[in-house]
Amino acid sequence: MIKQSSAGIYSWLPLGFKVMKKIEKIVREEQNKIGAQEILMPTIQSSEIWKESGRYDDYGDEMLRIKDRQDREMLYGPTNEELVTDIFRSSIKSYKSLPQLLYHIQWKFRDEVRPRFGIMRCREFYMKDAYSFDLNDDEAVFSYNKFFLSYLKTFKRLELTAIPMAADTGPIGGNLSHEFIILADTGESKIFTDKRIFDLDSEGSIIEKKSLENLRKKYERFYSVTDEKFDKEEFEKEVDKENRLITKGIEVGHIFYFGDKYSKALNAAVDLPDGKKDYVKMGSYGIGVSRLVGAIIEAKYDDKKEIMKWPLSIAPYELAIIPMINKNDTSTLEKASKILKHLENNNIDTIIDDTDENLSSKIKKFNLIGVPNQIIIGKKSEGDTIEFKEIGKDTQNLTIEQIIKILTEQKANN
Amino acid sequence: MIKQSSAGIYSWLPLGFKVMKKIEKIVREEQNKIGAQEILMPTIQSSEIWKESGRYDDYGDEMLRIKDRQDREMLYGPTNEELVTDIFRSSIKSYKSLPQLLYHIQWKFRDEVRPRFGIMRCREFYMKDAYSFDLNDDEAVFSYNKFFLSYLKTFKRLELTAIPMAADTGPIGGNLSHEFIILADTGESKIFTDKRIFDLDSEGSIIEKKSLENLRKKYERFYSVTDEKFDKEEFEKEVDKENRLITKGIEVGHIFYFGDKYSKALNAAVDLPDGKKDYVKMGSYGIGVSRLVGAIIEAKYDDKKEIMKWPLSIAPYELAIIPMINKNDTSTLEKASKILKHLENNNIDTIIDDTDENLSSKIKKFNLIGVPNQIIIGKKSEGDTIEFKEIGKDTQNLTIEQIIKILTEQKANN
Repeated sequence: MIKQSSAGIYSWLPLGFKVMKKIEKIVREEQNKIGAQEILMPTIQSSEIWKESGRYDDYGDEMLRIKDRQDREMLYGPTNEELVTDIFRSSIKSYKSLPQLLYHIQWKFRDEVRPRFGIMRCREFYMKDAYSFDLNDDEAVFSYNKFFLSYLKTFKRLELTAIPMAADTGPIGGNLSHEFIILADTGESKIFTDKRIFDLDSEGSIIEKKSLENLRKKYERFYSVTDEKFDKEEFEKEVDKENRLITKGIEVGHIFYFGDKYSKALNAAVDLPDGKKDYVKMGSYGIGVSRLVGAIIEAKYDDKKEIMKWPLSIAPYELAIIPMINKNDTSTLEKASKILKHLENNNIDTIIDDTDENLSSKIKKFNLIGVPNQIIIGKKSEGDTIEFKEIGKDTQNLTIEQIIKILTEQKANN
Repeated sequence: MIKQSSAGIYSWLPLGFKVMKKIEKIVREEQNKIGAQEILMPTIQSSEIWKESGRYDDYGDEMLRIKDRQDREMLYGPTNEELVTDIFRSSIKSYKSLPQLLYHIQWKFRDEVRPRFGIMRCREFYMKDAYSFDLNDDEAVFSYNKFFLSYLKTFKRLELTAIPMAADTGPIGGNLSHEFIILADTGESKIFTDKRIFDLDSEGSIIEKKSLENLRKKYERFYSVTDEKFDKEEFEKEVDKENRLITKGIEVGHIFYFGDKYSKALNAAVDLPDGKKDYVKMGSYGIGVSRLVGAIIEAKYDDKKEIMKWPLSIAPYELAIIPMINKNDTSTLEKASKILKHLENNNIDTIIDDTDENLSSKIKKFNLIGVPNQIIIGKKSEGDTIEFKEIGKDTQNLTIEQIIKILTEQKANN
């Protein structure tokens, strides 16, 4: 699905690419639903605006610094607060045009000393980052809460239970921040929660100030922090013993509110109704799109059974046809091709494995690739019924029409 | 639509972004139709494979060279022959898996001394590049011809007349190459053609060896070259005086066949039926996606009338509603909102200009933005009819239902 091309840098092969594009599409749709507008900023930035904000020196060695042929200082963007603020200040002049929610989905680069965990922590990575611009704190928190809801919905569609946890604001700075974390033994983040938070969801919340405030409150009723924010005494006071959960997780999203930190430094102000000017209040909101591919594998891979199953919404294909192929007998391959055609006519996205590996190693391979359904055409396949298996469940002998019915229902429920 | 962020590097604002994404979608669909598979290679490459091919030193200053924190030599890919060959050699071992047509759409960087013509010749640009891998010359030319057809179809869907012209193979090397060029007075390429070539199209061609050979022959019957390949004597001998056309154009696509130039250098060989091994034969095929945005503006902008009109297939919106807005009278804005809703219910992608600029400057602005249809709500707008204008045509007073009918027909014909 992917291939390392150099340390911490990967190429996406057809299957991995399809998964990432489907994740990107879901992320995009949920951004659009809260009224965010898509733009696209370049990967290479000038150092000028980073000097204006004061971060050019602060950012350290993770920033990939570049000199072009004319010896100008450039950099490969690790994040885009400066650039988006520059776009904002040159196009928005009045409070009437607020709020502005802008996002883009673009490649970024952080020059990690030790890139680890494959695509989970690479140097070149694909990320959705959004930025909000508001008139005052109250409106800005409303924007923040829109993303809070949007993130809960995004991760739910990816079939992930991602818990928002109070987090440190780190090098981006600010005073309000949540990390969205999914549980995984291999995770890098240590987390401390009241386990009842896992029963919550965003059901019933709408994009309206009060509703979103209530959603935030509902989640904040339960203790849940990363180790940066952990306070043992507080944890033990607030959480009954039977509800305490100390475990590991993977960060898949991060939202920040940082007020006028960048708008002040970069002079991004708007005209107010009374004729004065004020700096806009900003937040930033990230989802690691390429990282999610890895995170979902961590969450959905069953290492005991050696089985991976992608959520249907982002699976590279809905179904894999795996025929047993003998050198001198093309009958199974012909049968497979016939079934493929029939399924495609019914809008079922299908892949066929026409390699001449032996059947059991092909099945094993597809158990790892994680296409959620399999049709196996072996010697046994005679008559009208076909061996069909939803990954992780038992094999059934069904007619092609029965299989189409099952797959169509899977999609309708998705 | 776009904003320069530093020399030769641009940010794409919502309208420009929408146009580019629509172009990208058409390019992608036409690649998929000839059986090309989409992958995604990173922007940052290691220098190692470029040293293997010998191009690391040859490429010159246009290559953006980077050192990471561990002092490793990296570069921002200006093209991907090496990287895709590396992917090929590590995954394809047998002639049975040929042909392979792989493409990706990714940001690239060429450090031009003098970036010019806005997004037409930037340093960071978005490009589709495809690569073909075949067993022998004959099969490789079949692959080449598939892209030849695909490019004609792609540009036709973009409502561009792009003419394939014999071209020099330049730094990528090889012996067979066509540039696809559209006419434009502002173009950088000088071209020499038999003007009858503009009457040709790919109608009736199918993805089959003979059919594609005939298509190539049909085009090659007429003289058409860029200045690199120009030979005055030949031109005047082959083209009658009345058919000679010497003018300027913009290159929007480029296809190359270069045989085993890279496969040999990088040792990309496959097992043959007779047990021997041979280097695969490769071609590469580029379309400048971000450049096309600029090229289409050049082709479609009427500088006498100061009117731009996007082809419907890639227009940022189908229709703009432009109401006259007075401080103390919100009735036109209310009317506009009502119309917007009605149009959206009929799947017409509409933008409304709710700024309080004066009406004539708003109309002028939208004449430049190039949304192909306008509804103007001024003082005159009374009763059931609305002022409707297809850009470049006369204003008509129509009912909303008549307008919907016109717009629906426009789409059906597209």
